[in-house]
Amino acid sequence: MDATALFSFQSGLYVVSASDGEERAACIINTGLQLTSSPIQVEVVVNKQNYTEGVIARAGHFALTVVTESANMMYVGRFGFRTSKDYDKFDGIETCQTILGDPYTPENAACVLACDVVKTLDVGTHTIFVGEVKDAQVLSGDPSMTYSYYHTVLKGKTPPKASSFIGEA
Amino acid sequence: MDATALFSFQSGLYVVSASDGEERAACIINTGLQLTSSPIQVEVVVNKQNYTEGVIARAGHFALTVVTESANMMYVGRFGFRTSKDYDKFDGIETCQTILGDPYTPENAACVLACDVVKTLDVGTHTIFVGEVKDAQVLSGDPSMTYSYYHTVLKGKTPPKASSFIGEA
Repeated sequence: MDATALFSFQSGLYVVSASDGEERAACIINTGLQLTSSPIQVEVVVNKQNYTEGVIARAGHFALTVVTESANMMYVGRFGFRTSKDYDKFDGIETCQTILGDPYTPENAACVLACDVVKTLDVGTHTIFVGEVKDAQVLSGDPSMTYSYYHTVLKGKTPPKASSFIGEA
Repeated sequence: MDATALFSFQSGLYVVSASDGEERAACIINTGLQLTSSPIQVEVVVNKQNYTEGVIARAGHFALTVVTESANMMYVGRFGFRTSKDYDKFDGIETCQTILGDPYTPENAACVLACDVVKTLDVGTHTIFVGEVKDAQVLSGDPSMTYSYYHTVLKGKTPPKASSFIGEA
């Protein structure tokens, strides 16, 4: 089995965030996907070790933004390489709220979706949250970032908690 | 709600196929995703109206290839715009079998995965099949095709049964 075969999968880069009323959390994922169009449902796949996973589970809803190519490694580092457990990732940047009460930043975001969790599936190290989209807004016409762009242009790494981590060089 | 916000999602293009011992079927999806790396699990999201959905369900396993940019609209048309119900999509092209017995063509494929269905989730019009990857082979170094490339370069349309169909122009 050649696990590097998986490197040919294509995906985007997303920030998923939630507030359960007491605390707020966010993290970067490359596992956002539209599941159905009627009704519009998306999914996010989040590592159980990510603090955000528990906050989404308690909140029962989440915000999802699609990251644009305008994002730099500072932005990726803020949302992707720290933990919401001891750091408010929205501190010091423009922060809005979806109609469901979840925080998001319009910075480097092509769009924002407000999603109600309607189903979950335990897939081992990660949880799939299926979200029914209750609101969707376009925020920018900038091209959205592919995970491949993140690797090749930003020279970004895949962190161990990512779905696609295979001990890459 | 502005449903065009969803157009900024990024994904790849995949051919998912299966044989239940009696019949074989395949279709194109843009909903292939790596879920976990330990063990390696991927998912495919398939419309229940696609003939392939039932064949995967009965087989309990599937093959997944990642489509490369070398694919033309003839190839996409073969797998994406006909039904396996009355047409053998592998007829007349090079066809191999994964270790689980599912057919696939190495043409225009960056890699092939042999997947055992370990979980399913009903999400309405579509079914999520979670597959544990039992074998993975790199088939080509050609770049894999993004769904965005399919739209902008091949001028491909999104068919009504796709997860991302929103009555686009």
